[in-house]
Amino acid sequence: MEYDEPKFFHVMQYASVADGDVIDMVSGNPDWEPPDALREALEAYARFPPEEFQYPPSEGLLELREAIAERRGVGVDRVVVTNGTGEANYLAMARAFERDAGSEALLMDPVYPYYPGKTDLLGGTPTLVPTHRGGGLDVEAIRAAASEETALIVLNTPNNPTGAVYDIEAIREVVAIAEAVDALVVVDEVYDAFDLSGRFESALTIDSPNVIVTSGFSKSMAITGFRVGYAILPPEHVASAKTRHMLVNVASARPSQHAVNTALRETDEAYYERARELLDERIDAFGSALDAAGAEYTRPDGAFYVLARFEGVPGTMANVKRLIDEAGVAGMPGDTFGTARKDWFRFALVTPRVEEAAGRLVDYFDG
Amino acid sequence: MEYDEPKFFHVMQYASVADGDVIDMVSGNPDWEPPDALREALEAYARFPPEEFQYPPSEGLLELREAIAERRGVGVDRVVVTNGTGEANYLAMARAFERDAGSEALLMDPVYPYYPGKTDLLGGTPTLVPTHRGGGLDVEAIRAAASEETALIVLNTPNNPTGAVYDIEAIREVVAIAEAVDALVVVDEVYDAFDLSGRFESALTIDSPNVIVTSGFSKSMAITGFRVGYAILPPEHVASAKTRHMLVNVASARPSQHAVNTALRETDEAYYERARELLDERIDAFGSALDAAGAEYTRPDGAFYVLARFEGVPGTMANVKRLIDEAGVAGMPGDTFGTARKDWFRFALVTPRVEEAAGRLVDYFDG
Repeated sequence: MEYDEPKFFHVMQYASVADGDVIDMVSGNPDWEPPDALREALEAYARFPPEEFQYPPSEGLLELREAIAERRGVGVDRVVVTNGTGEANYLAMARAFERDAGSEALLMDPVYPYYPGKTDLLGGTPTLVPTHRGGGLDVEAIRAAASEETALIVLNTPNNPTGAVYDIEAIREVVAIAEAVDALVVVDEVYDAFDLSGRFESALTIDSPNVIVTSGFSKSMAITGFRVGYAILPPEHVASAKTRHMLVNVASARPSQHAVNTALRETDEAYYERARELLDERIDAFGSALDAAGAEYTRPDGAFYVLARFEGVPGTMANVKRLIDEAGVAGMPGDTFGTARKDWFRFALVTPRVEEAAGRLVDYFDG
Repeated sequence: MEYDEPKFFHVMQYASVADGDVIDMVSGNPDWEPPDALREALEAYARFPPEEFQYPPSEGLLELREAIAERRGVGVDRVVVTNGTGEANYLAMARAFERDAGSEALLMDPVYPYYPGKTDLLGGTPTLVPTHRGGGLDVEAIRAAASEETALIVLNTPNNPTGAVYDIEAIREVVAIAEAVDALVVVDEVYDAFDLSGRFESALTIDSPNVIVTSGFSKSMAITGFRVGYAILPPEHVASAKTRHMLVNVASARPSQHAVNTALRETDEAYYERARELLDERIDAFGSALDAAGAEYTRPDGAFYVLARFEGVPGTMANVKRLIDEAGVAGMPGDTFGTARKDWFRFALVTPRVEEAAGRLVDYFDG
């Protein structure tokens, strides 16, 4: 298997043994509270009768699938609950390759590294397609890259790492390209709760048998360890995805599903709005610092990452370690995310110490 | 994909809409209480700070891996925590096929249907190998079937559905055969807590780079819905299994892992002993009824299933439905489990109504 262990672990390991205090801007774990209803539901579940501790339906608890279907405006039969968005992407991408419709995956550059990793695992060949400078879709580049060999196009909006929120019309054009070459489009919307632009529209609004939407609750409910995600598939692909899910995982964890189901029903919009406001404040603070440090960056429209480039200090692994040791701030090297931003650093804004980190970077680059 | 949805669901669906009361002897869900410590740990977890709700290490919580390693007498580096034993088997079987050491899997007949399902999913070819009448390993049949094309041999002890507990010397001979043809032996020991014979010995006692042992806590702690299993791999296969686990699932659910870790440390042997005593009583009661009904069966040495054959009423799907409708007892048709026991029924003893079911079968066949 041609897959290197993600560099995340290498950087976190390095930071954890560094001298002095290091602010973690590496991992994508929200640092805020989960919904109150989630805690309460899990506590109640611990006292449920033993039959509630047994296998849920393989495709997920019916009530949870219904709540997801209602929220996303689709039929419940199209919803498969998975072990996090990671498994949802795995099932969706596997479906694309097993149709004998080619073996190439078009992935947007910069790229979330699990996509090429999963492509390799599934026997496909990843092709990186450039995006526009701010991270927006370059539809013409996708059109030029697509061929009969293309089985799959993976999009992620709001985007990790660029923060771009894709224009729905651009997604629609990509779907038309996919239809023309018999490819599936997997749209990973796991950051949908973190649209800071007001422009996000789900790909579910596009009526096409070639679109699979994946998402989950890891980010929106601040529970990356609970592993509750889902895929929404066109009707003709549901049975195959369910079979693979059953053969790989049997089912996903029921305590997690129960807690998420309750939280999904009982948590109001204010919870998600507070998280967005917090991120907006952190982006303001971090952006001001990047300005002061003379860095180049694009203000994210969504998700919770910032890509930044510092004059004379490219975002290599060596310089990531230098920032850890000398500035006390841990980011990620740009080449983790494909080729487009090799000189850049990615900083995750899911730490209460964003302002402090911003100050450290200003001192370091401006000092 | 050449995999039919398991017949379990079909039978359970039929039973659930049947007229009259039906005793479920289909599903493999323990009907008794989980360990007290498991409930308490989950309740405590619900109040943990938010950082405890985030991604665990991909290979599992270190404390849980340490507890498993200590219990199984292996180095912690060999332990990968998975989303139930199902995922552990998937990872182990995938490892066998991706070595370019053939594409054939030798599976024992009767067979747990997920094994041929996973083999198909992974692009392998399943070959069923007969076992002895009571379910014990037929080493000569395995030797005759093994060839350079054999990548994998899957054993399950204590066995579902036969109840056989494999002789460790027989397993040792199978491992020698596997070494000779460069195959991996996956030994699924998920029913290890339900050895009623006192003869069970783990395949971990066999020192071979070709043995992968899988297990989990679904059955032993009566929590099939929690999805906590593990694989113990030879050192040279650990990295590949971890990579596949990461790319498919990222990690398994942390609330479940936390609860199991605590329960594993705080639950004494008496908990497991009580479950074995309960099963022994149920086997006695059910066996007496089968005797009275004139059925052929083998008393299980482990796990919690009984295979039985009734004169003139072969265990076909049609007759399973007849027993549901006319006797009020739901079992599984024998052809779910390969070819060896097509005429037999499988009854799961994980219902408090075993004696009642036994009475119904006596009335039906003897009436």
